[in-house]
This record gives sequence, structure tokens and C-alpha cells, in this order.
Amino acid sequence: MKVWILGIGMGPQHVTAEVADALRAADYVVASEKSSDDGLLAVRRAVVDAYAPAVPIVAVADPVRDRSPGLTEPDYARAVADWHAARAQRYADVLRARGGVAAFLVWGDPALYDSTIRIVDRVKDLGVDLDYHMLPGISAPQLLAARHRIVLHEVGRPVHITTGRRLAQAAAAGQENIVAMLNPDELDLSALGDWMIWWAANLGAAGERLVSGRVRDVVGQIAVARAAAKAEAGWVMDVFLVRRI
Amino acid sequence: MKVWILGIGMGPQHVTAEVADALRAADYVVASEKSSDDGLLAVRRAVVDAYAPAVPIVAVADPVRDRSPGLTEPDYARAVADWHAARAQRYADVLRARGGVAAFLVWGDPALYDSTIRIVDRVKDLGVDLDYHMLPGISAPQLLAARHRIVLHEVGRPVHITTGRRLAQAAAAGQENIVAMLNPDELDLSALGDWMIWWAANLGAAGERLVSGRVRDVVGQIAVARAAAKAEAGWVMDVFLVRRI
Repeated sequence: MKVWILGIGMGPQHVTAEVADALRAADYVVASEKSSDDGLLAVRRAVVDAYAPAVPIVAVADPVRDRSPGLTEPDYARAVADWHAARAQRYADVLRARGGVAAFLVWGDPALYDSTIRIVDRVKDLGVDLDYHMLPGISAPQLLAARHRIVLHEVGRPVHITTGRRLAQAAAAGQENIVAMLNPDELDLSALGDWMIWWAANLGAAGERLVSGRVRDVVGQIAVARAAAKAEAGWVMDVFLVRRI
Repeated sequence: MKVWILGIGMGPQHVTAEVADALRAADYVVASEKSSDDGLLAVRRAVVDAYAPAVPIVAVADPVRDRSPGLTEPDYARAVADWHAARAQRYADVLRARGGVAAFLVWGDPALYDSTIRIVDRVKDLGVDLDYHMLPGISAPQLLAARHRIVLHEVGRPVHITTGRRLAQAAAAGQENIVAMLNPDELDLSALGDWMIWWAANLGAAGERLVSGRVRDVVGQIAVARAAAKAEAGWVMDVFLVRRI
């Protein structure tokens, strides 16, 4: 059987022509469902409705993941691995039962802080005979840049993309232009008070908020905007670029 | 007047729904033209033909840029700045004469190693009264990852995106997972012999080539593939991910 891993950006507006074509040619879409009130599932439904309304969505209940904020690095890696294994087992059951051409719709880009490729690899390891292919999608740092109308780096210089939990480590190692994703609720930016920040929450969705400025001048404004985004959408996901100037 | 800066990825297959909408609503597209045999101009023409055939393309001859390989860092920065200034003057003339809604189509994503935003800022500084907006496009590192069916980083770890000329510096500073873009013709990878590489040339275009493996095992294969890509397309542009494993 064949599996498509399709990047859909932040929703229908970001779907590329090739992703729309692949989606239309699929027999079904497999989508994890975290709860009945799942914002990401709603985005996937909107994409299918817009481009391939005849293609059914098979919702698969998402296994529980340990997201305790105090996890050490190895415990964090193990929690993620356990979660992938449980997901893979459920996906394998669906793919074995249905066969054909399946599509996974990935929020953002499957190449950036997404586990779908790894999970599909595990599904293969469970003995499901499949070939998979992947198409890129717009990622959150790109939309962040577009909304703030900036380039992600200075002329000819690097951009370092990492997680909120590794931000301090990157700055301490001398990185001066850093995108942080997967940010925890309480991220302390006080060590970067002199830096510039371009911040966004819930990009491309209800509750989208943008803030930019000198970190020390706008941390309060970011906290307020983050709370407002969460109040409006019921969830909040933020991403930002910080630059030492 | 209004200016759109639109990311088009590697061609029509990567155009997003929102970019197609913005393009259709534009009065004209402004495109630089390097010579009569300009691959990037051909990609822009293909995008306009596919999504907005009624919108005219205004080709603007590209000023000459000093691309001497031996340029020092300050000379390189000055060469880029001079080139931007000359381009801005030519664009300003076109925008002043035509007004309305103009669109610039950017290969890849305007937020990554592209100068369109900076040039449009300069056009504003030259006194053209404009507002600009930006929409993201699929970038080369994303297509690289999709073609090789990989995530650009290990679980929860960073990806460092930089230029070929700064690759050695990034590795020396301890980066272990690096995407290199804007690579010169002769890039020496011998210091990274033990690392893994995922390499591509002319992504999404004629002559596309992919190579992956242990650097020391595949550098020869990459040189051959690069020459073949150039022979087939008449030009070559490569991008790669290297990872210390």
C-alpha cells in the first residue's frame, strides 16, 4: 500500500497544488484525535472539505502522552518514544484493515518538529507493507516571518531553529538569531532582555496574536497576548524569533 | 499602492491557495531578469501561466553583482548592498510608473536567504508610497527533507540553517545538524567525513539529483551528480543537511 505524508501548513490557505492533488487521489485520510474538542483535527477536516470532500477521514484516538513539565531529557525522550509506539500500533491496525492509498495531513511541515515520519517508519517495522512519500508544507516559523514581514536571519547569516526548552542553551552557546518552537507555558526570557523578539501565537488560526520589540519592553505585552489568544481559541501555541542586536 | 511579496516554492506545484489568490488579484508581476536564459524567470512565468495568465509580467533587467569567490566578509556585504541599491532604483521606477497592486514572486520562501523584503524597503526609502505584505512559500530545505523523507533534526533537537561559506564555522562552533544553502561550486566537506549528508541539486526542476550517505563515502558521487545536474539544466543550485552521528 501507499502512504502520503502531506504538509498542510496552518490550514486550507496554505495547501499547495501538489498536496491538493495527492489528497484528492487518496482513498482515505488518517488523523489522530486527541479529544472531541481537537483544534488540529478541525484544521484537517477543513482541508479535506476544501480540497477533497469525497475522501473519508478515519479518526484514530490519540494515546496519552506524559507532558509533565519537569521531565529530564532522557525521560522526555522516553515519553515521546512510548507515545510514538502506541500511536504506531493504532495506525498499523487501520492501515492493515483498509489498505489502498492513505494520507496523513501534518500541521505545518512534516520535516520540522513533527513525528509522523518516525511513526510511519514504526508502522512499517510492525510489518505493514507500505511505501511512503512526503510533500512539504508551510511551517510556523515561515508564517511568523511573513506576518512580521522579516527575513529569519541577517544578510548571509544563520538561523538556529530549536525548542523553547533548549533556547537558553542555544543562547549560552553563542547563537544570536534563534527561532523557538514547542514553547512551554512559562518561558523565562529575562536573560535576553536586550534582544529583539518577533513573537506570534496561534498563527493562521482563531486568536492569532503578534508582538514585536525589545524583549524587556514587550514581555508583559506577550504574556497578555498569549492569555488572550488562549481565551479566544481554547488553546495556545506560540513561536518566536529572538535576535541579539 | 500595494505590493505583495509571494513565496512560490520551487514552482507551480508548490503554490499555496493564498498565494494563487493574491497573484490573481494583482495588476502585474515584477520580475528581475538576469539574462535571456534565466531559469528563475521561467519558473515565475510558469507560475503566472498556471494561476493568473491574465496578469502581465514586467521583466526588469538585473544589475550586475560582484560574485567573486575570494571576497572578504565586508566586501561580500558591500557587494550585496550595492546590488540591492541598484535593483531598488529599477523597481522604484517601475512601481512609480504603474502604481496599483504589484506582486513579486520569490523562489522558495521570502524569509530565507532572499533579499526581496530588503529591496522593497529600499524602494520605500526612495519615496515610493507603498504598503507591502508577504506570504510564505515552500523553501529548498523543506523539499530536501521531503525528497529524502527525513525530519531536519533529531527528536527535540535543533537545526542550524546557514550558508555554505559559513558551514565550517558552524561545525567548529559545535553545531552537529546543519543545513547549508547558497553553496559555492567547490565546497570542501573533507572535515565532515564521518558525518551523514542528505544532498540535493536543482530541487523541483530539470536535473534534480539526490544523494545521501556517509560524507566520505558519497562526496565523489555528489560531485558527479552536481556536474550532471548542471549539464542537464544549464545551472546548478544545491542544498544539503549534514549531521554528526
